[in-house]
Amino acid sequence: MDTPAFDHTLFAGCAAQIIQHTRELAAKGWTPATAGNFSIRMSPEHAAITISGKDKGRLTEADIMVVDMANRPVATHHRPSAEAALHTHLYRKFPEVGAVLHTHSPNQTIAGLLYASEGRIRLRGYELFKALRGHTTHETEVDLPVVPNSQDMDALTASVDAVLTQPNTWGYLIAGHGLYAWGRDINEARRHLDAFEFMLGCELELRRLGVR
Amino acid sequence: MDTPAFDHTLFAGCAAQIIQHTRELAAKGWTPATAGNFSIRMSPEHAAITISGKDKGRLTEADIMVVDMANRPVATHHRPSAEAALHTHLYRKFPEVGAVLHTHSPNQTIAGLLYASEGRIRLRGYELFKALRGHTTHETEVDLPVVPNSQDMDALTASVDAVLTQPNTWGYLIAGHGLYAWGRDINEARRHLDAFEFMLGCELELRRLGVR
Amino acid sequence: MDTPAFDHTLFAGCAAQIIQHTRELAAKGWTPATAGNFSIRMSPEHAAITISGKDKGRLTEADIMVVDMANRPVATHHRPSAEAALHTHLYRKFPEVGAVLHTHSPNQTIAGLLYASEGRIRLRGYELFKALRGHTTHETEVDLPVVPNSQDMDALTASVDAVLTQPNTWGYLIAGHGLYAWGRDINEARRHLDAFEFMLGCELELRRLGVR
Amino acid sequence: MDTPAFDHTLFAGCAAQIIQHTRELAAKGWTPATAGNFSIRMSPEHAAITISGKDKGRLTEADIMVVDMANRPVATHHRPSAEAALHTHLYRKFPEVGAVLHTHSPNQTIAGLLYASEGRIRLRGYELFKALRGHTTHETEVDLPVVPNSQDMDALTASVDAVLTQPNTWGYLIAGHGLYAWGRDINEARRHLDAFEFMLGCELELRRLGVR
Repeated sequence: MDTPAFDHTLFAGCAAQIIQHTRELAAKGWTPATAGNFSIRMSPEHAAITISGKDKGRLTEADIMVVDMANRPVATHHRPSAEAALHTHLYRKFPEVGAVLHTHSPNQTIAGLLYASEGRIRLRGYELFKALRGHTTHETEVDLPVVPNSQDMDALTASVDAVLTQPNTWGYLIAGHGLYAWGRDINEARRHLDAFEFMLGCELELRRLGVR
Repeated sequence: MDTPAFDHTLFAGCAAQIIQHTRELAAKGWTPATAGNFSIRMSPEHAAITISGKDKGRLTEADIMVVDMANRPVATHHRPSAEAALHTHLYRKFPEVGAVLHTHSPNQTIAGLLYASEGRIRLRGYELFKALRGHTTHETEVDLPVVPNSQDMDALTASVDAVLTQPNTWGYLIAGHGLYAWGRDINEARRHLDAFEFMLGCELELRRLGVR
Repeated sequence: MDTPAFDHTLFAGCAAQIIQHTRELAAKGWTPATAGNFSIRMSPEHAAITISGKDKGRLTEADIMVVDMANRPVATHHRPSAEAALHTHLYRKFPEVGAVLHTHSPNQTIAGLLYASEGRIRLRGYELFKALRGHTTHETEVDLPVVPNSQDMDALTASVDAVLTQPNTWGYLIAGHGLYAWGRDINEARRHLDAFEFMLGCELELRRLGVR
Repeated sequence: MDTPAFDHTLFAGCAAQIIQHTRELAAKGWTPATAGNFSIRMSPEHAAITISGKDKGRLTEADIMVVDMANRPVATHHRPSAEAALHTHLYRKFPEVGAVLHTHSPNQTIAGLLYASEGRIRLRGYELFKALRGHTTHETEVDLPVVPNSQDMDALTASVDAVLTQPNTWGYLIAGHGLYAWGRDINEARRHLDAFEFMLGCELELRRLGVR
């Protein structure tokens, strides 16, 4: 008898957490037209990740698959999304990362286009910095990296890898595309995602008001 | 015994799909004051379509009727909405079209007014292009046609027909009025609708920020 | 045995309709901090109307009272809201009016402040005009009157009375305060309210975009 | 047998009210990334207050603790949030205060940054002033104080104390951080919170439109 490729009880628990968060994020309008990818690291070798092209407000366990850290499908006939490569890149690069959330809110899409030429959005003065692990005060600056979009996943992964140089960086934007945010577990990743979305919304509003 | 005019089981299934989507779209505020029309092609000859003037958040099967492709009512005492002509125009013109969704969101209404004189909105650089059937990259431009509004349905249909010249066009705007979007089935039409709405919202925001 | 002051079954039905609509309007954020008043004409002599100061998202039948057309309480120890006078004014002035809805959305509050000096907001080119009873085309202009706010209800009623001079006027704004909308029944009043709110939102957006 | 530190039935009732309001406020997006703190005065000596760092949309009674008016934990192993000091400051300073609500909406965060240098936001002409206890007309001005943010709670409390000089002041902003609002009970505090949020949103919108 073969050893199972992964622990199915563990998988079911990860899938349930992904489904709960994606439903909430879909209800906010951050996964328009089936956009977005969401994953949890199950083990050093495996991650549970959403299958591409599904309505994120209606996921079931059958819409979640397992990939290994080289982005190969495990015990499934599904092919992973091309963007699964960006998830496994983070798991390989940062051993403490336990979950990766990728959404496409209007604020994220617009901020990526606006700040692409600068390569980062410099955030200043937000009490909400304290929601980002490793940050304890509003009296600092937090840079959110912005990389250009590409349909070539190797090129996009290389762009991302090059900008993730600062400690306690918990997200990046892809111009015209959306946000990747992560954390040690899915609740922390979600807290980081919500904090970045909130601060991006404030930055855009401050630009509209002429003070950025 | 007469042959039934259409298959009632098929009709009930189409009506259920229309009701589900219209409730969701009404909840988003895209069908204000009973606005909007929604249809599914049932067969080469027939389409199920919403009756005009109903609150789209509270539809029941009794609020859906059948028209033939010349926009005549089938086995019903209801008269179709004048705008049913725009639905059957799409079914006649594009044999692959299986569903047509027409909404009136604020973004759609405003974008139609703003871009009416140009006859189209040119979208650039969105990852979300990939949600539109036949589009595979953000590195392109997508034109969403805009036609002037008219209460003369023949004139309006002719305006629309004249601008639908490009392959893989999945929507158009009527100035001051709203969006028509379509697809091979209602889920694809909805994905196209959601993608256009999202990108129109981003375009308006980029104009507010002075970069369009 | 005394004749009952009004038909309690009729009252219960009117209260149920008011409660349903106010809950929906509260959920939209149009009744902030207990703002808003809502009524239905029960008979030539009586109207059911919300008691002042209640959270409009949590109304029960006990939060609805009856007034006569001189704004006097009927068979209740509750005192009517001062603004009940604006409801009964409409019932006296327009025999066809069956329901009056008064909300305070941000768009309504802001538009009232912006256009107070002009005394009206001139709306142009909206397909949604057709949602207003008696209007059949977008190729017209619709004026929504704007009156200055006052805590003196007689003065405010006189201001309102003076501006309601055009046929098929179904609403007015009070500057810094909110919208009154009405119709032959509560569903029509709601359709008018939703249509005005939508068009006010579009007008403000067009101003932000520099085209109004 | 020891006297219990506080009345547990009273505590359970206060916790239930806090949970209801925080769920509603979280659903509005005013407690991003676990932000916000909420309390009710239980007695002259004690207040029930949310534990820091919890998702405010999913609170249970176990996420509420008791502090005394010197901000010390009572009969619990939990440590109070640093910001609990701002709650007890209000309870000590104003004997009539029965509940304190602290949220971080985008409008609150942005308005605090925009008006920090002026030390207050001057509100004018809103009918909604009447939702603030002690105010009876729109024909006045209401100042909402704004203090600079600080991670030093003693310094922040001193800043707050210095600006709370006017009668019938029911809130203040901390720049880049959020709003504190209060009332004689939690329903009044909530009405004040909702009224301030609404008027801040209108003020920002009027600035965008160039009339502030």
